[in-house]
Formats: sequence, structure tokens, C-alpha cells
Amino acid sequence: MKTEHLCAIENAVKAVVGKEKINHFYFVACGGSLAFMMPAAFIFSREIEIPASYHPANEFVHMQPKALGKDSVVITCSHSGTTPETVKATEYARKQGALTIALTHVEDSPLAKAAEHPLHYDWGKEADSSDLNKGVLYSLIFRILDGLYPCDKYKKGIKSIDGLDAAMKKVREQYKDVTASWGKKYKREKLIYTMGSGADQGEAYSFAICLLMEMQWINASYIHSGEYFHGPFEITDFDVPFVIVKGLGSTRPLDERAYNFCSKYSEKIMLVDEKDFDMSDIEEEVREYFAPLLTGAVLRSFADALAYERGHDLGVRRYMWKMEY
Amino acid sequence: MKTEHLCAIENAVKAVVGKEKINHFYFVACGGSLAFMMPAAFIFSREIEIPASYHPANEFVHMQPKALGKDSVVITCSHSGTTPETVKATEYARKQGALTIALTHVEDSPLAKAAEHPLHYDWGKEADSSDLNKGVLYSLIFRILDGLYPCDKYKKGIKSIDGLDAAMKKVREQYKDVTASWGKKYKREKLIYTMGSGADQGEAYSFAICLLMEMQWINASYIHSGEYFHGPFEITDFDVPFVIVKGLGSTRPLDERAYNFCSKYSEKIMLVDEKDFDMSDIEEEVREYFAPLLTGAVLRSFADALAYERGHDLGVRRYMWKMEY
Repeated sequence: MKTEHLCAIENAVKAVVGKEKINHFYFVACGGSLAFMMPAAFIFSREIEIPASYHPANEFVHMQPKALGKDSVVITCSHSGTTPETVKATEYARKQGALTIALTHVEDSPLAKAAEHPLHYDWGKEADSSDLNKGVLYSLIFRILDGLYPCDKYKKGIKSIDGLDAAMKKVREQYKDVTASWGKKYKREKLIYTMGSGADQGEAYSFAICLLMEMQWINASYIHSGEYFHGPFEITDFDVPFVIVKGLGSTRPLDERAYNFCSKYSEKIMLVDEKDFDMSDIEEEVREYFAPLLTGAVLRSFADALAYERGHDLGVRRYMWKMEY
Repeated sequence: MKTEHLCAIENAVKAVVGKEKINHFYFVACGGSLAFMMPAAFIFSREIEIPASYHPANEFVHMQPKALGKDSVVITCSHSGTTPETVKATEYARKQGALTIALTHVEDSPLAKAAEHPLHYDWGKEADSSDLNKGVLYSLIFRILDGLYPCDKYKKGIKSIDGLDAAMKKVREQYKDVTASWGKKYKREKLIYTMGSGADQGEAYSFAICLLMEMQWINASYIHSGEYFHGPFEITDFDVPFVIVKGLGSTRPLDERAYNFCSKYSEKIMLVDEKDFDMSDIEEEVREYFAPLLTGAVLRSFADALAYERGHDLGVRRYMWKMEY
């Protein structure tokens, strides 16, 4: 990780740890940036007693959570740093006295200016994974955890950021042919379901709303693996396609149960089983939390394959950034 | 409301208010029962500083939230009282020392036995709305709010339960022809999107996963109105159907924005605007929180119309309750 990124993160962590009291961690963003913060809220809820929740930025601003105030920490993210809802959420949180930390690719963007602690991240294929959005977020959250509740596990989390790039490269290589074949096989699907749970909810959600709906104009629906049996499973049939993520963490039994049932009745299952990942570059104790980042790489490569097979570039939009909305 | 229901609720509220400290309200259930508790978590987050969150029961048991303990209040619900995940969640919460309150239609069911405070509710068309699941839940949450932070607004919430039945009857009558025409017009749709925000998220979610997917085998996808512009809106087209709920509460601007855009590009919008409801039987200050219950009645009547037009009874299942899963 670049020194300038690390310095900014360490400053933000110092401010968090230096607070007299923390009543709530709010993770606030929109779309893909919201999805990428979902595992952070999950990790916090599982690891520490301070409540953590994630909110669509516009809902956060309008609902005005009662607990938000000077004891709160609000972590926001927008790639361009211009997403109006996220800028507004950050400004609102800061006005309420909360400590604000904002991740963005664009320095001096409105979001970077709105937050007390702007954190810059790199973008593009040349960047090391530790300097990309997910690397910076994970570095931040494991340092916050270790700052508040110092222990070996969180130090291993911090250390594992250095192994992320190697792990990502391996998983991309491992799934190259698999995702290419999925692209070929499923390119004519009109609707694809995605399922995940625990720290993987964000990846299953963002694959549905960003990669499929936004970037491929393919209808999609995200289902929580634990909710599948309480309604959604009735639409399962031989020709209904599902992307299923089996996580490594405590909620893996939910994913396994959903997969076991679903694969009996659907002939179109795309399974991403994190047990198959080579995670030797990541410390064992925190692999369950890092695996979703690798799942993200696999699903991205599947989206690339779909785009290629369908001649529908991932950059094409009909509404986004093209008009007022 | 029946005296026996009221007594049980008041006992539970006494136990909540009598706690030395409350660190978290957890609303835990599966599918439709989870959806019906979503507004409760929203109302708490907006009204009071004690954190509140909702969780699929199976995720709750496996993630084992760190904050769960003797200072926590866990409210669960299962209609039959037998949903294994919800029974387990209640048992787990109680074992951790949390105060457990469980809503169920079936007295002496495993869920009723698992919770310290089982609350029974009635079912069927003859029952008064105040004695049905939503009436009992709202009675519980407004009494908890008023017990912890006594004020006129929460007393108005309690009082409004008595007006619920009349309000529900009016809204059903008002939308009878509208939902019948939707059933006719949209009976051949293969996929329907639903949108809502704030206290209406649960209704938009349960219409997708329970009414459409489970009971009509129609593909569906729930989108948060605030998230629509951050990915999902790219699938909008003239022939893509959307059920949109415009709420009365603080997040109404999100719903309005989504509706305004969506209705420009889709010719298949089913709008439920809570501003059109006759809510004279509900106190003005709490109408935003009660309106989702009326929206639920409208959407149910739409589901009835779809079932009739498609000859697909709402009670038909191919997997649920028919096999091991």
C-alpha cells in the first residue's frame, strides 16, 4: 500500500480510536459503493458490540437516524466523489457532529471536501489491490478494529491486505475458463437470480444491480440465501438461472442449504464456492472476510464474458450520466 | 383489541421498560414475517437512539451478533410458530440472556414456548385488524416507544390501532377496481419489479418474494427507491412493469424521484400513492407509519386479482411444506 494512502488511513483511525465514545458506525453510499461497504457492516456486527449498519445515502439523509450525532462515525464512498446523495449524506453527518470518513478515487472532489477524513484510492489494472477501493476499505476497518480492540486476529487482517493482490491474480487465473464458459452458456438469459449471505451479500447484490441490470441490461434479482426458502424458492425450475456464492464464514450453512436445494431443481447453476479459492496469501483467521473480495473478481470476470458474448460493452448506458434524473 | 392480546402485550412492554439498560432491538424472522417487521426497525431507527436492526432468522443464529446479550431485546415472529429458523433464533437469543418476545398465530407452538413473552394474534377475515399480526406488532412497538420515551406522538400511535380496521376497509374498497384492472392487464407478465423505501420497504419486498414469487410463481425483484438510480434504472423500458409505492414519510422524495423517472420510460407502472389513502381514522402524526399497512392491503388485493386472472390459487405450492428442504 502506498505511503500516502496509509498515512491518511492511519489519521482517520486515530480520530476514531481517540473518540471518547462511539455509539454507531454508519456505512453510507449508493449502488456499487454501498454494496462494497456491506461486508464492513457485517464484519463489525459480528466482531464488536458497537452497532454498525449500512444505508443508501439518500435514505440516510431523509430518515435522519435518531442516534446520529457527535458519538457517531460515518463512513461514505463515491468513486467519482460527485454522487450528490453521498456528498449530501456526508455533509449532513458532519453537521450533526459525526466523525466523517469518505473514500473516493478523485481527490479534491466534492465528497473529499465534504468529509473530515477523505481517503483516496487508486483505480485501473496497474494499481496494486491494496490501493484500490476494497483494499483501502479493508485496511481502514481492520485498523479501526485493532485500534479499538487490539488483538492478533485484526493484526492478521491488516497484514492480509498485502496478500490481496496475489490472491486476486490467482483467483482470476483459476476462474478464467469457467467464467468464459458461463458467458457463452448464459448469454441469452433474460433474468438471472443471485444468492449470497453474510459478508457476501454485497457481492451478490452488486452483481445483480450493477453488473447485470446496469451494465448488461439483464433483469436480475438478489435473494438472501437464508430467505430463499421463505418464498423465493417457489420460482425455482429447470430453466431458471442462479448465481450462488457459498461463503467461508459462519453463514456458509445457509448458502449450502440454498445451493443443495436449488441445484436439484435448476439446471442452470453458476456456483462460486469460496472453499475452492487459493487463499494461501491471506491469513487463515480472516479468510472468511477476504473471500468476498475474490468472489467479486470472479463475478467481474463473468460480467466481462457476458459483455463479450453479447456484444454489449460494460460501459454502455442509456440513462446514467446521460440526462437529468 | 381483545383484552387477552392487550394483557400479553402490556406484560411484554413492562419487561422491556423495566430493563436497566437496552443496547439493541433485534427484529428477527423469515420471509413474510421478516418483511412485516421491517417497518418496526425503521420506525425505531428514526425515532429513538437505541439501535434497531432486522435479520433473517437463520443469518441471526449463524452470525451471532456480538452485541446480543442480556441488554438486548429480540422480537421474533412466525405465523405457524413452527418455522425452525425462527424458533432457533428465539432460543439462541434467550440463551444469551436477551429479553425475547415472539408473535405467532398458534398458541403453545414451539415459538410460543421458546420466547419469554409469546404474543398471540388472530387470523382470518372475521378478525379485527387490531388483533391481526400487524395490529399486535404496532400495538407492541408504539407501547414500547411510549414506555421508554413517553410522549403524545406515541400515545397517538397506540390510539390509532383502534382505527386500523376502518382504514383498511376503506382502502380495500377504494382500490377494488384498480387492483382488478391491474390483474387483468398484467396477468401475462413474466417479471415484475417492486419499489419502495422507508417504512414501506417491507411491503415492497414481501410483495416480490411472497405474493409474486412464492404464491404466483412470477419472477420478481425488489429495488429500494433510493438505489434505483445507482444501477437498476438501466433496465427500465416501455414494457418493463413496476409496482411503485410512494410513502407518506420522510423518504417520500426518494419514491417520487424514482416514480417520476420510471413513469417516463415504462408504460407499465402500478402506482400505490399513500397520499390517496383515506386515513381519517389514523392520527395525523403517525399516518406515515400506518400507511404501509394499508399499502399491504392494496397489494394483497392485487395478488388476489392476479391469482383469479391466472387461475393460479395463492395457496398453491410446489416445494414449500411439500418436502424436506
